[in-house]
Amino acid sequence: MITIGIDLGGTNLRVGAVTSGGEVLEVHSTETHPEKGPEYALQQIVERVTLIREKHDIAGIGVGSPGPLDLKNGVIIEPPILPGWRNIPFRSMIEEAIGLPVVLDNDANAAALAEALIGAGREAGSVFYITISTGIGAGLVLDGRLIRGAQGNTGEIGNMIIDPSGKAAPGINKGSLEALASGTAIGLLGKERLGIDTGSKGVFQLAENGNSEAMKIVDESISYLAIGIANLVHTINPEIFVLGGGVMKSEHLILEPLIARTKDLVYPSLTDTINIESAALGQQAGLIGAALLPLEKISR
Amino acid sequence: MITIGIDLGGTNLRVGAVTSGGEVLEVHSTETHPEKGPEYALQQIVERVTLIREKHDIAGIGVGSPGPLDLKNGVIIEPPILPGWRNIPFRSMIEEAIGLPVVLDNDANAAALAEALIGAGREAGSVFYITISTGIGAGLVLDGRLIRGAQGNTGEIGNMIIDPSGKAAPGINKGSLEALASGTAIGLLGKERLGIDTGSKGVFQLAENGNSEAMKIVDESISYLAIGIANLVHTINPEIFVLGGGVMKSEHLILEPLIARTKDLVYPSLTDTINIESAALGQQAGLIGAALLPLEKISR
Repeated sequence: MITIGIDLGGTNLRVGAVTSGGEVLEVHSTETHPEKGPEYALQQIVERVTLIREKHDIAGIGVGSPGPLDLKNGVIIEPPILPGWRNIPFRSMIEEAIGLPVVLDNDANAAALAEALIGAGREAGSVFYITISTGIGAGLVLDGRLIRGAQGNTGEIGNMIIDPSGKAAPGINKGSLEALASGTAIGLLGKERLGIDTGSKGVFQLAENGNSEAMKIVDESISYLAIGIANLVHTINPEIFVLGGGVMKSEHLILEPLIARTKDLVYPSLTDTINIESAALGQQAGLIGAALLPLEKISR
Repeated sequence: MITIGIDLGGTNLRVGAVTSGGEVLEVHSTETHPEKGPEYALQQIVERVTLIREKHDIAGIGVGSPGPLDLKNGVIIEPPILPGWRNIPFRSMIEEAIGLPVVLDNDANAAALAEALIGAGREAGSVFYITISTGIGAGLVLDGRLIRGAQGNTGEIGNMIIDPSGKAAPGINKGSLEALASGTAIGLLGKERLGIDTGSKGVFQLAENGNSEAMKIVDESISYLAIGIANLVHTINPEIFVLGGGVMKSEHLILEPLIARTKDLVYPSLTDTINIESAALGQQAGLIGAALLPLEKISR
């Protein structure tokens, strides 16, 4: 069975044909140009879907979108990275334009589904996927099914408070995981303490070159991530954590100390069970996961 | 269908016949006497099960036990409130003595199942049950099924870190929810600040009588509980939180401010969705939930 995955990002819009086994048959990339509005993006999508349908019989379409979303009604509410998009009924817009069933979910959920079914978590019965990037998002897959929550907020761990006396950040809780350990948080510390304006990437570069203050920033972020993951161990106890997102490009600086510190924060009986791995699908996770969304619905 | 529920506590041992609709037909109570060992408890159980089977046709037996447990093998590992019990294969002991299939799970999971299927959460598709007592435990029920986690540690939220600079407590993380907001934590603050030795009950009594220092202790505990619950909203996003356990006997001092503060800590789109209620089954939850455990297995 072949479905179409649509990875709607703030910069890029990618439309691809994917098999139910996760093989990407073809991908069409273009720019989202959010400032041109959802009608423009819809037109880009329709053109590429039409091209794909000339070659393949398509069973459904899945869209991974930046949140917040109204999952029930398939509405994009007001994502910070799609400025000007407000209460867009994107699911029904695509369905009406194309005439195929569409499933809309947030991008972290889509990537979680892909990593759980085909990527680093494919052997595990319960997978908690975390994307550490500008923000921190996540998705939970139990027995191959996405858990969405009553209002679709399962995995909104960026807003999990781990240090009430910690830093504040706009739109999220003071001392929350995202305020303390996201790429944005790391970049801000680089600005404050190192005087650089190159974001988390700049901090990781300096840390790699042995800059002690940069190493300290990385170290602090890892400690906060370890608290967040240990909390998830004691809340959900998934078989594996899969970590993706831009910050994980520096995984060689992060993964080993993160695992060690997480082990220090869990019940002794759980120390040897801690399983944290890097995402396996890279940039493709969002597209593949979007394409898997309609299959999950069909198999219900 | 009728099953037997066994509620194994540190003080009391209760064995009851329960219908699949949660109606308790009869209950036999005795004392656990943990110091007499598991063989003594087993004997008490066998006698009472035999009495019940003279009257009813029994489809299975469920046991709610203090943790930690090895769920897979039905073993009681080493619960602090059953001193001297170490690696007890209680499930197979009961099965061999009685000749009926036995399901063993932890007491918080059993109570969660009862509250989710029959109690305060019976209308909800996803229920997060929290028991606030000597410790803090929890259970998650999605679509009528207990979620146990890879090593059975789903809901071990007592060990969730919510303030790394907060109080330490034996066996759990410094600044964890249990170290800051359990009955034990509240009782310790009563000792430190009020010079009383009557546990959390004494603190709540003084708070009710207008003692400002006692009111402050209650207030702080509620703030910590609100952080814990807000974290669960952003992690799991259940439809309802159901709160039980000894501390909730003072629910008239807790519930209203707890809901208000939790609302302050969630995404604005979630404020009006916060649903926190007191447990409906009281002391019976553990027994009823234990009796429901084998039905959950049977219906798989």
